Amino acid sequence: MADLNLTNLHGSLTDRALNSMNFLNEVANHYPDAISLAAGRPYEEFYALEDLHGYLDTFARYLRDDLGYDEAGARRAIFQYGRTKGIIHPLVARNLAADEGITVDPEAIVVTVGCQEAMVLVLRALRADPADVLLAVSPAYVGITGAARIVDLPVLPVAGGNEGVDLEDLVAVAKRARAEGLRPRACYVMPDFANPSGLSLELETRQRLLEIAAQEDLLLLEDNPYGLFPAAGVERLPTLKALDTGRRVIYLGSFAKTALPGARVGYVVADQTVAAPDGTVSLLADELSKIKSMLTVNTSAVAQAVIGGKLLQNDCSLVAAGTRERKIYAENLRAITDGLATRFPRGEVSWTIPSGGFFVVVTVPFAVDDALLARSAQEYGVLWTPMHHFYDGDAPVHALRLSCSAVTPTQIDTALDRLSALIHDQLRQQPGDTATTL
Amino acid sequence: MADLNLTNLHGSLTDRALNSMNFLNEVANHYPDAISLAAGRPYEEFYALEDLHGYLDTFARYLRDDLGYDEAGARRAIFQYGRTKGIIHPLVARNLAADEGITVDPEAIVVTVGCQEAMVLVLRALRADPADVLLAVSPAYVGITGAARIVDLPVLPVAGGNEGVDLEDLVAVAKRARAEGLRPRACYVMPDFANPSGLSLELETRQRLLEIAAQEDLLLLEDNPYGLFPAAGVERLPTLKALDTGRRVIYLGSFAKTALPGARVGYVVADQTVAAPDGTVSLLADELSKIKSMLTVNTSAVAQAVIGGKLLQNDCSLVAAGTRERKIYAENLRAITDGLATRFPRGEVSWTIPSGGFFVVVTVPFAVDDALLARSAQEYGVLWTPMHHFYDGDAPVHALRLSCSAVTPTQIDTALDRLSALIHDQLRQQPGDTATTL
Repeated sequence: MADLNLTNLHGSLTDRALNSMNFLNEVANHYPDAISLAAGRPYEEFYALEDLHGYLDTFARYLRDDLGYDEAGARRAIFQYGRTKGIIHPLVARNLAADEGITVDPEAIVVTVGCQEAMVLVLRALRADPADVLLAVSPAYVGITGAARIVDLPVLPVAGGNEGVDLEDLVAVAKRARAEGLRPRACYVMPDFANPSGLSLELETRQRLLEIAAQEDLLLLEDNPYGLFPAAGVERLPTLKALDTGRRVIYLGSFAKTALPGARVGYVVADQTVAAPDGTVSLLADELSKIKSMLTVNTSAVAQAVIGGKLLQNDCSLVAAGTRERKIYAENLRAITDGLATRFPRGEVSWTIPSGGFFVVVTVPFAVDDALLARSAQEYGVLWTPMHHFYDGDAPVHALRLSCSAVTPTQIDTALDRLSALIHDQLRQQPGDTATTL
Repeated sequence: MADLNLTNLHGSLTDRALNSMNFLNEVANHYPDAISLAAGRPYEEFYALEDLHGYLDTFARYLRDDLGYDEAGARRAIFQYGRTKGIIHPLVARNLAADEGITVDPEAIVVTVGCQEAMVLVLRALRADPADVLLAVSPAYVGITGAARIVDLPVLPVAGGNEGVDLEDLVAVAKRARAEGLRPRACYVMPDFANPSGLSLELETRQRLLEIAAQEDLLLLEDNPYGLFPAAGVERLPTLKALDTGRRVIYLGSFAKTALPGARVGYVVADQTVAAPDGTVSLLADELSKIKSMLTVNTSAVAQAVIGGKLLQNDCSLVAAGTRERKIYAENLRAITDGLATRFPRGEVSWTIPSGGFFVVVTVPFAVDDALLARSAQEYGVLWTPMHHFYDGDAPVHALRLSCSAVTPTQIDTALDRLSALIHDQLRQQPGDTATTL
C-alpha cells in the first residue's frame, strides 16, 4: 500500500497544466537524439563559464566603487540573507529605462526567482476570494495557467484571434464573469512575439487594451520575455507598461532569454498603490514582498550578482548585449518559415510568419495530440509542441508549435525534413478531402 | 484614491505571521547601529568572494571529470534551464549519508530555493481541502506559519513544554481536530536546537514521536537548520529521518547556516509513495516537483553549483567544513548564558541553557511587546526578538529570544549590558512582587 493517495493531495497535481510540462519534459528526455523544435530555451553557444566569474567580480566592484560598500559589506550583500525585494532593483530600473522607455521607481520592483515566481506572487495577492478569476489571452503560456492552479485561481480564456487579442471577446468575458458573480481581477497578455502564438499586438490594439482595462477595472499582467528579439527589419513597439498612464499594468520581467536561464532571476514591476483599512497606503510591490518572504525569503544574491554583473557590463542595455542572439533568432525564424514554404507548397498546411520571438505555429488538417508527438519523436526523430497544451478544455487542436531558439540552420533543415515526412504520412492516412488533394 | 484595496487582496497580507517578519526587519533597518542579538543569520567573517569562484570551478570540474559531461554539457548544466528537482541531488544524498546517517535515493530529493520553498511545496501538496490542518510545535518558526498562510492552511499549535514537544498534547490536538471534522495532515517539528526555543528532543522522545505519528496517521515535517551546531561537549542525536523506518518523515534541509544563505539553496527529502486513482505509484518528491515547476521552474543552477562546489570541496561533509563556525557558536552561546548569570544573579530573570544552535530564550516578569523592542533599539541600542511573534493568538508573552550567531564576544558583552539596563529599568517600573524583590 502506498503512503499517500493522490486524491488527498492538492488538486493542481492532477491538473492538465502541471502535467503538460511534465509530459513534454519526459518526451524530450526519453528521445535525447531527436532534434528539438520544442525547447524554448535560449541559444547557448555564446555562454562561457568564465563569464560567470566576470559578472560576479563586476557586481562586487559596483558594490564597492559605486555604492560605497566596504569589503565586509560587499561580501555580506552577496553571501548573506538580503532584502526581500532584491538587491539589483536599481539596475533593473536602469535596464527598463534603457531598453523599454519605462520609468519606474526602483522601490516598485520586486526581484524574483525567475518570472514564474513573479506570476505566483501577483496571482497569490489577487486571489482573495473564491469568486476571483483571472482572464488570459488564449492560447496561453502554460506557466500562467499552472501558477493560477497553485493558488486556486480559475482562468477564463479570452480569444486571441489573429490580432493577438480579441478585444470584444475580452469585454464579453469580463461582463459574463461579473454577471455570474465572479470577480475578474486581471488579464494576462504577452503583447510581443507571444508564446505560443508568435503574435504581437499593434500599437492601436495596445492603446485600446489599456482603455478597456480601465473601463472594466482590470489589471493587465504584461509578460515580456521575447520583446528584445524582433525579426529582421521589424521595429519594436512600446510595451503596455510604457504606455500605461493609470497604473493598470503589472509588468512581468525575465532575464532568462536576455541573460541566462540558470540564474533564475526575473522581476515584477508593481507600482500600484494599495489602501489599508487604517488609511495607510503602500506599494503593491511591498505587499508582494510580504508574500515572497514566505515563499523564497529572497532571490539568491549570488544569482542576482550574476545578472547584475551582466547588466553593468552592458551599461544596463540588453538590446546591445543581445545583438548576436537577435540575429540568430531572426535567421532561424526565417529558416523555419522558408523551409515550411519549400516543403508544403500546396496550401494543405499553413503557418504563422511571426514578426519576432521564438515561435512559429503550424496548422495542419488533422488533430495534433500527444500520441502523435511521441510517434514523431520515436519514428521521425523530431520534437515539437502540440498546441493543445496551451488551450483550456479537451477540444482537438490542429496545430503544433515550432521553436527556433536552440537549434542551428542545419538542424532546422533536417528537423523540417522529418516533420514534413511525418505530416505527409499523416495526410496520406487522413480520410476525406484532405487526402484527395494530395 | 489608491489603485487597490488591501481587503481585496489575499488574507495572508494582513496576517500576523507575514507582518511579523516585516516589522522585525524594519526595526533592524531603522536602527543599524544597535547591536543585534535578533538576527539569526550565520557568522560571516569566514566568507570570501574568491571562494565563490572556487566553488563554481570545482562544480564544473565535477560535471566534466566525475559525470563525464563535455564542455558544452557542463556549460549547459550551469547556464540553461534544468531538471526541476535539481542537479546536486546526488551530492545532497552523499551529504545526508556523511553528516546524518540518512540513506536516501537521490530521486527522493527536491532541491529548492532555500528551505522556505521546501515548506511551501509540502504544505501546498498537503492542503487539498478546507478541512486540512497542520499541527506545529509551539513556539514555532515564523516561516512555517507564513508558508501555511500562503496556501490557506490553518495551523494548530501543539505545546512544546520543556521537552521540545508535549506528546500528550500532540495526541490531544490531533484527536480534537478530527472530532471537529478537520483533517490533521502533518506535524511540523524542529528536533535539534529549535528556533526559537533552543530545545532539543531526547532520543526517547524522538522514538515516541515517530510511534505517535504512525498511530495518528500524521506525517512529521522535520526541519533541521541547526543540527550541525551542538554546544561544546554535546553529542548529536539521530534525526527523526534517520530513525524513520515507515516513511513518516518529510525532511526539510537548509544550506543557509552550513554553507551560505546567499545561494538560497535548500531541499526536501520526500520518499513517500503516492498512489494515483489509475493504480500508478509515484514518489512524493515527483509530485512536489510538479508544484515546483509552477512556482520557480527550477532552483538556480548557478546557486546549486556554488553549494555543490562547497560540498565537493569538503567530501560532502559539512560537519567537517563547519568546525570553525561550530566553535564560535558554542563559545557565543556560553558567553550569552554566562553573561546573563553575571547580570541577573537574583532569579528575577531566567533563561534556557541550550545544548546547541543559535538561540537563548530569556523569561522576564513582564510582557515583552514590539513597543518594548522599539524602545530597546532606540534608547538602549540593542535588538532582540519578542517571543510573542512565535505564538498564535494575542496573549502577552513574557519572553524574548537572543541569537548568538552573528556577533563577537565583545558585542555580546556590550549587548548584554544594554539589555540588562533595559530589563532592570523595566523591573523598577513594574508594580507588585517583582519590583519589591529588587
